[in-house]
Amino acid sequence: MAHTGKQLFTTLDAGGELTLELDEKTFPEPTGNQVLVKMEAAPINPSDLAILTGAADFDHADYSTGKVVAKMPEPFLSGQKARHGQKLPAGNEGAGTVVATGDGDAAKALMGQRVACVPGTAFSQYAIADAMMCLPLGDHSAEEGASSFVNPMTALGFVENAKMDGAKAILHTVGASNLGQMLNRICLEDGMGLVNIVRKDEQMKLLKDQGATHVVNSSDPDFMEQLKAAIDETDAYYGFDPIGGGQMVDTCFKAMEQVAVAKMTEYSRYGSNQQKRMFIYGRLDFGPTTLTPSYGFGWTLSGWLLTPFLQNAGMETVMRMRQRVLENLTTTFASSYKTKVDLEGMLTKDAITDYRQMKTGEKYLVTPWG
Amino acid sequence: MAHTGKQLFTTLDAGGELTLELDEKTFPEPTGNQVLVKMEAAPINPSDLAILTGAADFDHADYSTGKVVAKMPEPFLSGQKARHGQKLPAGNEGAGTVVATGDGDAAKALMGQRVACVPGTAFSQYAIADAMMCLPLGDHSAEEGASSFVNPMTALGFVENAKMDGAKAILHTVGASNLGQMLNRICLEDGMGLVNIVRKDEQMKLLKDQGATHVVNSSDPDFMEQLKAAIDETDAYYGFDPIGGGQMVDTCFKAMEQVAVAKMTEYSRYGSNQQKRMFIYGRLDFGPTTLTPSYGFGWTLSGWLLTPFLQNAGMETVMRMRQRVLENLTTTFASSYKTKVDLEGMLTKDAITDYRQMKTGEKYLVTPWG
Repeated sequence: MAHTGKQLFTTLDAGGELTLELDEKTFPEPTGNQVLVKMEAAPINPSDLAILTGAADFDHADYSTGKVVAKMPEPFLSGQKARHGQKLPAGNEGAGTVVATGDGDAAKALMGQRVACVPGTAFSQYAIADAMMCLPLGDHSAEEGASSFVNPMTALGFVENAKMDGAKAILHTVGASNLGQMLNRICLEDGMGLVNIVRKDEQMKLLKDQGATHVVNSSDPDFMEQLKAAIDETDAYYGFDPIGGGQMVDTCFKAMEQVAVAKMTEYSRYGSNQQKRMFIYGRLDFGPTTLTPSYGFGWTLSGWLLTPFLQNAGMETVMRMRQRVLENLTTTFASSYKTKVDLEGMLTKDAITDYRQMKTGEKYLVTPWG
Repeated sequence: MAHTGKQLFTTLDAGGELTLELDEKTFPEPTGNQVLVKMEAAPINPSDLAILTGAADFDHADYSTGKVVAKMPEPFLSGQKARHGQKLPAGNEGAGTVVATGDGDAAKALMGQRVACVPGTAFSQYAIADAMMCLPLGDHSAEEGASSFVNPMTALGFVENAKMDGAKAILHTVGASNLGQMLNRICLEDGMGLVNIVRKDEQMKLLKDQGATHVVNSSDPDFMEQLKAAIDETDAYYGFDPIGGGQMVDTCFKAMEQVAVAKMTEYSRYGSNQQKRMFIYGRLDFGPTTLTPSYGFGWTLSGWLLTPFLQNAGMETVMRMRQRVLENLTTTFASSYKTKVDLEGMLTKDAITDYRQMKTGEKYLVTPWG
């Protein structure tokens, strides 16, 4: 029995036109350990926006029902040369009900169950998913399970990574984000130190109400002093940043170094011996990252992505992390949404203009069947 | 018998005045495994310039015999707060003759010998040095031995580090420098791939005449294509850069990623899985390093310093490296100098203006006794 439904595709052509559109499609039968999931809910994550909207001009785009065409400026057009002309699916994760399976035992065991999955094609009415990566949701709703992979595993991944590297505390540059609040709950549970940077007083209150001990406000005139005091108290020389562009990483390295230098008894032209580590795990700001020569040579900055981290961590660690997420889906790992849209609703000017800003606490949930 | 002589000091006060001056000083008697070296030659390395000249304005400085006073601009003045008011010695390395020793056996064994040493106070007529870090020079002249630590151990350190990390080839952004030429000789000896970036045709010729296989000229209009071809041929995803400021690191990451992406069969919004690694080991350019979002998340950039590297590598590796340097002091590890100056000559406007530019192949040698 063939399943047909709507699916979203994103295409960037060499001339700079980015097209988002819905296609009516017949989905293939799952084989082996594949399952076919009737998708009920999928979050729009910052990691989805990279291919959905990127740096394209949606203020002056052509909108019609189920279709948008926007211009992609340079250097972002050339920077994505590898995808020019390719019609790509989108949507990292979501949840729905398994309506067909391959012959594999893992697949067959999921028939009829509600699962969370990571198909990479979640903005769709149906999606083929790998049974091994599906998480049976039991009595949880699709909305509760839709965001059970990207944010929970990323936040847990930060803490796992910090423990592997022997870090005593973590610095997070967007403390009040969905991910940041989750990270705060994990750090409190695990006794890992955490320094949260926020931009507003209400975000500080939000985190403090959730038990956060170190929250500093980058809009305050004494931000640098607040940040240094928090690093001094926690030894947070290990940080994660999803902004990417601008000076936030530089500011964190400066603060870390100034705290370390203040503890030195003798001047060194090379800076402190304190190793400082930052990771960029997103690109809320597409501008260049600037690093100044203000913190010696004892620093390392890396990109951070969930998939390679999980590959390096190994199956046992991943299974342990997945189990922890499932057991705490509506507490530690709960996500909240600003609003719900269907697939057509995703492609309206109002929606795109809103969700592409990735404002704290304003995540969209796509419900493909309306 | 007390030894007295001249020594150079550098002092940055909180008001922004950088003073370089010679002091007449009585040197302490060496104790334990210390030796007192009558210094005969010391190179001015880029790593010395950090505290000697930094970003100060030597075009409008006050010069007198054995003394210069220059203004240090912001943000470099505040950035060096930890040294404000401290009178610091300078000169990482040099060579001379041991004229007094402590009671330790290692020290006594060096009495009367010519040695290379790493006192950190080499711009001086005498220096106290650690016998364990002295390299007996045998029949070599002080000039031949003066640069036997910083450049040789750094160039060897790059190759050791690359081998530890499993890299197949190294990218070096200043191929024709003294250090770069040394690195080229080491890589040829060890069968390590090397991509050299140079700025001029004559530098390309120089390196090719020395057997370099991959040299690309950043002044050529097709620089990026040259660089990508060289990375493709060598698998040089592992690079070292002493410039620091500007876009060189970004350019290298871009070229590495574009080579890796061209080999992918399927587009990924996250870029290639090829890990890209760069190290900044100097600051020829004090401007900010800019990193653009053009190479996914599979990259890591670190500061690199010789001392922590040697500490991590362990004593056995260090001894093996030292032995290799001594055995090849006038061949693989030979340095050349543009000119010699005495301590007063170091502090003239002509000399400072010249050596602070750190031009390729124009290193100064200080001969403290004239």
